[in-house]
Amino acid sequence: MSSAHLGLGSKCPPAHKCKLRLYSMRFCPYAQRIHLVLDAKKIPYEVVNVNLTQKPEWLYSKSPQGKVPVLELDGDCLHESAIIADYLDDKYQHWPLHPRDPWKKAKDKLLLDQFNKVVCLLMRMLRSPRNIDKLFMEELMEELDVFEAELTARGTPFYGGSRPGMLDYMIWPWCERSDMPRIVVGDRWNLPKERFRHLMEWRGAMKDDEAVKKSFLESSVHAKYFMSAQAGSPDYDLLLH
Amino acid sequence: MSSAHLGLGSKCPPAHKCKLRLYSMRFCPYAQRIHLVLDAKKIPYEVVNVNLTQKPEWLYSKSPQGKVPVLELDGDCLHESAIIADYLDDKYQHWPLHPRDPWKKAKDKLLLDQFNKVVCLLMRMLRSPRNIDKLFMEELMEELDVFEAELTARGTPFYGGSRPGMLDYMIWPWCERSDMPRIVVGDRWNLPKERFRHLMEWRGAMKDDEAVKKSFLESSVHAKYFMSAQAGSPDYDLLLH
Repeated sequence: MSSAHLGLGSKCPPAHKCKLRLYSMRFCPYAQRIHLVLDAKKIPYEVVNVNLTQKPEWLYSKSPQGKVPVLELDGDCLHESAIIADYLDDKYQHWPLHPRDPWKKAKDKLLLDQFNKVVCLLMRMLRSPRNIDKLFMEELMEELDVFEAELTARGTPFYGGSRPGMLDYMIWPWCERSDMPRIVVGDRWNLPKERFRHLMEWRGAMKDDEAVKKSFLESSVHAKYFMSAQAGSPDYDLLLH
Repeated sequence: MSSAHLGLGSKCPPAHKCKLRLYSMRFCPYAQRIHLVLDAKKIPYEVVNVNLTQKPEWLYSKSPQGKVPVLELDGDCLHESAIIADYLDDKYQHWPLHPRDPWKKAKDKLLLDQFNKVVCLLMRMLRSPRNIDKLFMEELMEELDVFEAELTARGTPFYGGSRPGMLDYMIWPWCERSDMPRIVVGDRWNLPKERFRHLMEWRGAMKDDEAVKKSFLESSVHAKYFMSAQAGSPDYDLLLH
């Protein structure tokens, strides 16, 4: 999972027939979604990590915009994390992650759509950390209120019930990184524990999940990568030094 | 399907238990997607048309941004056309629209994602028809080339095979309107028949589909609505005059 990231001028390693391959980047939250789904379902796969600054030429033949994650099987590829995740859940039904009830599944997809607002706010913050103020934090917290309320209403430790489901894994990568902003912007990043009590408990429970453990990195590590990226030379191979 | 559009100050008609209700707007291509899916699957439903300029107050309790389509069942609602369409295909499996093979289903979803570029270009054109030139048409045609090539490669009359599938119905509303730009911008709108031979044949075959016929409107009617909207007072009830 933490192999060296292949860049411009590299050769794509030969693939094995009938074996799933995930093109990933060790710190990409979208790619992590697919690691989580594969690991939760215990599907065997191999990983090829990709340098996203000096992209290998062959990446574009697998993903039109040269993005990760890409899932490859027998020379054919899928991109877009939500589409890959749905594929894996459709194909490997022994450990379903989406709710079995179609209406509930659709409701979770709407929540996932709504989580994109959280992602956009986090990206905005990390792009210009100096602009973080009380107004920004309130805007962010209002988006998170939806997820706190939903978890409270469900009355279960996870959105998926007694174990994590697709929605849990799809939003997890950003929640794993939720202490990172404090390292970057300091005390202006402050999520009141009382307001997000169930989300905090959920976060603790997620950390104990076997699939989550496989790709988990501490916030300090995420921050280290983030700061290298912000300084203009992302240290993709940080974990190999 | 063409009932009067309810606006500001209206009362929402009482719903019937266990009956699907679609909140729609007669000329909205996203809402038409859901009509097509419901009609293709022969699922009984009722329609409540909504005035999207003077929106009824109650619309926001059903759809957070006050958009259509909204699917309602026993007081609970779904929005977002792609999510509603997937729900209907998951729930009513007697007439499946997505490919049964999960990989093919994922590939079709990627194509649907890609069709959004066509939709964006069409919207850009209709917003400022004066800017349509050869460069714009070439950009649009390059996007359409993908769909022509895909249909050619599949060698079937529809993307879904011998009958329309989900991808066919999801892209149809914009293709139904594909003669409308000529009415609006004149001869600058010109799609060479030879370049899009399979797409043209597909369009003819789609017009003969029973589900398509149910919501089909001629381009001249779409253009009439469009011009009323562009003039600032969309004539939602055009078909009732």
